[in-house]
Amino acid sequence: MLELRLVQGSLLKKVLEAIKELVTDANFDCSATGFSLQAMDSSHVALVALLLRSEGFEHYRCDRNLSMGMNLGNVSKMLRCAGSDDIITIKADDGSDTVTFMFESPNQDKIADFEMKLMDIDSEHLGIPDAEYQAIVRMPSGEFSRICKDLSSIGDTVIISVTKEGVKFSTAGDIGTANIVCRQNKTVDKPEEATVIEMQEPVSLTFALRYLNSFTKATPLSETVSISLSSDLPVVVEYKIADMGYVRYYLAPKIEEEEDMKP
Amino acid sequence: MLELRLVQGSLLKKVLEAIKELVTDANFDCSATGFSLQAMDSSHVALVALLLRSEGFEHYRCDRNLSMGMNLGNVSKMLRCAGSDDIITIKADDGSDTVTFMFESPNQDKIADFEMKLMDIDSEHLGIPDAEYQAIVRMPSGEFSRICKDLSSIGDTVIISVTKEGVKFSTAGDIGTANIVCRQNKTVDKPEEATVIEMQEPVSLTFALRYLNSFTKATPLSETVSISLSSDLPVVVEYKIADMGYVRYYLAPKIEEEEDMKP
Amino acid sequence: MLELRLVQGSLLKKVLEAIKELVTDANFDCSATGFSLQAMDSSHVALVALLLRSEGFEHYRCDRNLSMGMNLGNVSKMLRCAGSDDIITIKADDGSDTVTFMFESPNQDKIADFEMKLMDIDSEHLGIPDAEYQAIVRMPSGEFSRICKDLSSIGDTVIISVTKEGVKFSTAGDIGTANIVCRQNKTVDKPEEATVIEMQEPVSLTFALRYLNSFTKATPLSETVSISLSSDLPVVVEYKIADMGYVRYYLAPKIEEEEDMKP
Repeated sequence: MLELRLVQGSLLKKVLEAIKELVTDANFDCSATGFSLQAMDSSHVALVALLLRSEGFEHYRCDRNLSMGMNLGNVSKMLRCAGSDDIITIKADDGSDTVTFMFESPNQDKIADFEMKLMDIDSEHLGIPDAEYQAIVRMPSGEFSRICKDLSSIGDTVIISVTKEGVKFSTAGDIGTANIVCRQNKTVDKPEEATVIEMQEPVSLTFALRYLNSFTKATPLSETVSISLSSDLPVVVEYKIADMGYVRYYLAPKIEEEEDMKP
Repeated sequence: MLELRLVQGSLLKKVLEAIKELVTDANFDCSATGFSLQAMDSSHVALVALLLRSEGFEHYRCDRNLSMGMNLGNVSKMLRCAGSDDIITIKADDGSDTVTFMFESPNQDKIADFEMKLMDIDSEHLGIPDAEYQAIVRMPSGEFSRICKDLSSIGDTVIISVTKEGVKFSTAGDIGTANIVCRQNKTVDKPEEATVIEMQEPVSLTFALRYLNSFTKATPLSETVSISLSSDLPVVVEYKIADMGYVRYYLAPKIEEEEDMKP
Repeated sequence: MLELRLVQGSLLKKVLEAIKELVTDANFDCSATGFSLQAMDSSHVALVALLLRSEGFEHYRCDRNLSMGMNLGNVSKMLRCAGSDDIITIKADDGSDTVTFMFESPNQDKIADFEMKLMDIDSEHLGIPDAEYQAIVRMPSGEFSRICKDLSSIGDTVIISVTKEGVKFSTAGDIGTANIVCRQNKTVDKPEEATVIEMQEPVSLTFALRYLNSFTKATPLSETVSISLSSDLPVVVEYKIADMGYVRYYLAPKIEEEEDMKP
């Protein structure tokens, strides 16, 4: 039997908004340690990984590991029926082919339950090894979202270049070129407004803006985003979920044409 | 001659928004007692009844009974030109085939008059007998609106079931099922937030959500809605207009298939 | 070399929004005295004139007169990437075929530069003689915008009639007629809320509402608008830009059919 009670139910609504644009169907995996998801986007280019640790739930009961396949559009439709202050409980009986989302209003006067059929979804769980990154940029998530959106009005790809001084986002398109530089800045009034760069060596990588824009749907989950870059690894764009876990997006850099020639 | 002056003109704007989705053309009936309308929706399934009593107007002059046929879309276009604080006056001369809406800004610096041709509309006025209902639910109008909207994302019809404990709204569709229960709750800080049930006997009836959703366009008119249910009668969904009258919607319940067999 | 630094960068964003609906491509003319533009709308009916005087810039360097052809849609795309508190600098090297817009965030932590190719645009600069107008109406720009929008829901043209008492806006269409009168009112708490009429003689002229509605895109630039009317001249609709200049729109009145007969 599975019963997960989350007082801050709006968090689950935000999680679904953060991933449903990229992923259509996916398995939610429940174990004693937490509620998680790992899925490729529908074009098999980007990977999403979600973790909500069991400690973050008010009540967390998961008798045995369970993998529940769901259409994320349908889950999102149901969660949109939850009020922003509602407590959300996810329930499933052992062996059942349905999952129930229960929404309780703060004063307990309104109780809704939504039951949904589960799906069988083939998926293999990729092991993502821990890696050392050449550069990690932490910056306000709203700033990163704004930059990706702004550059999309000019070009299709962005070059992200990190030096000790800051991070530069560049693009080019038919109407012109654009460069946006965010300087490292640790001395701000609020820590969530800082731009902090941890760098082993300078790095410059190219990405498709359309995926980065999808990643920024997670902006409401966290005031900061961290971007981990290395020449030979997919970028990791991480939004931490306070006290509970994270949503992480992985995306391989675009290879320059000269490098295409290499074996 | 007809001259009706309404200081709170925004109320008339809200009335039009409340009925123009359901009704295309209708007669507004003026008599010494008030300004009223009764009309079927265009598919002849739902009935709307409006009453604005003469006492609610700052000035009310109606020398003889008058029935003015109007296209509600056009009336709404004109009323949307009134500012939200404007005083609205409705004027018509005896025997004239036009009606004039006059809007005065609170400081009298801006005065607008909009003149519209009247239409000939055949309509018969239905007598709606007073009835005893098995159950009457009074609840916050915003809550009822939210529930109808939420359930529409799951299914097409709603079963409304009333017991002493509360009212349950249920639906089912391709993606799953949903139940929303609102418990009776009279002990709230603000009386307009109460959910109150007056019940002679339990009742459970099925309605098309698309009509209920149209009825909830009246939500800005009142903080509460009352829903009167009986097995053999159309449901009445009523929004009171403070000190003036009401907008009421009538809709026949859907008959279950077993009952279809009855003579 | 050209380098114009504008601390209140949002003003330039508003200027582009004010003119880009009417004008597709245009030359921005820079001289020692200021930054200006004059262009016909694409149907060659209305004329737009912009002036930003050099004194209004924090830094203004323009070594020689320069005419820079730009697609206003593209300029608007780039300026939309500037934050509302950003400082904007426009830069061009002598003989260069590009222009650069630089945006600096108030705390200097984020610096963006957008480079755009210039275009060759044929245009002749019309001399607009100073004229005496029969009537000049100054009124709140928001009020004028609302009136043009409201009347557009009824008809296609507006008759603007000025007398000593006030200004009347009238229209007629399939669904009816509308008249909106704004009375002269100088005794208001805030001067920007006044409606002031300077009149030599009464005047009544007809204009296409679709152009007036385009002119009102300049509403965010100024709290007041002035409308200068004479029987034999295009109307001038002017939005002053505080301490810097103006956006002016010129539109010829529609000739009544009787007058069409005149030589």
